[in-house]
Amino acid sequence: MNGVSRVRIRPARSSDVAAIVAMLADDALGRGRERIEDPLPPSYLQAFEKVERDPNIQLVVAEGEGGEVIGCLQLCILPGLSSQGASRGLIEDVRVASHYRKPRHRRTAGAMGRRGGAIERLQIGRAAHAQTRESMRSASTNGWGFQASHVGMTIRF
Amino acid sequence: MNGVSRVRIRPARSSDVAAIVAMLADDALGRGRERIEDPLPPSYLQAFEKVERDPNIQLVVAEGEGGEVIGCLQLCILPGLSSQGASRGLIEDVRVASHYRKPRHRRTAGAMGRRGGAIERLQIGRAAHAQTRESMRSASTNGWGFQASHVGMTIRF
Repeated sequence: MNGVSRVRIRPARSSDVAAIVAMLADDALGRGRERIEDPLPPSYLQAFEKVERDPNIQLVVAEGEGGEVIGCLQLCILPGLSSQGASRGLIEDVRVASHYRKPRHRRTAGAMGRRGGAIERLQIGRAAHAQTRESMRSASTNGWGFQASHVGMTIRF
Repeated sequence: MNGVSRVRIRPARSSDVAAIVAMLADDALGRGRERIEDPLPPSYLQAFEKVERDPNIQLVVAEGEGGEVIGCLQLCILPGLSSQGASRGLIEDVRVASHYRKPRHRRTAGAMGRRGGAIERLQIGRAAHAQTRESMRSASTNGWGFQASHVGMTIRF
């Protein structure tokens, strides 16, 4: 059980982009959606720069013992009028590297939610609540305290 | 059927905040969440100012024939790495004033989605797709082209 303390949560850097994209591509949906090439398509780095410039968005990674990137997620804090003008927190694109075997996978996902992780960062950002979407592939946010609350709807352009 | 052309979609101004809050409060969930007072609690105007400063967020209203505010919604365009660095569009807090009788209610909601409305604004903002949440109360976004895609999860702090 001592693996927990060895996962470090920190803001993503541009040098993490390839590792993040590899995790995004590593499921049935992502495989068709992402492009893993060397060098990576420039749209990924351009998007990283947009995220970096946006004070309401944080891309964070989980780092394993050897400094390797083993998890990622994106946080957004969105101002709005509803709930007496409370900001809402969004947690998107939660992924843990699949080569992490099951118990370690679960610990990594747990660390991303816990102290220093997603939920605390949204609270520091003064979000009144956090929302996420249930992944088709894995419930990485299991145990973070989320409850099903609504049906999400999408249009692809 | 000529009511459609008389609904005008425009960015919200601070003088619209009271009308927007009245619509947000006018359902079972909103009633317990909002505070309708005169003057309004300052948190609403503070939130409006935050929204105004955020280049990724647009609060828009639908205006009826006499210039009265009869609908609202909030758009966000969020950069991110997934889908080859595509931005995602969010449509939140869609409301139509309840004193609008049913057919007019539906036309107003329709106008908010159509040309000049939410979907087009997100496309202009280069979002690759749009997401929204199905309201507990009314399907204001019916006919805009959304399909159920995921289970939304919430934690309240």
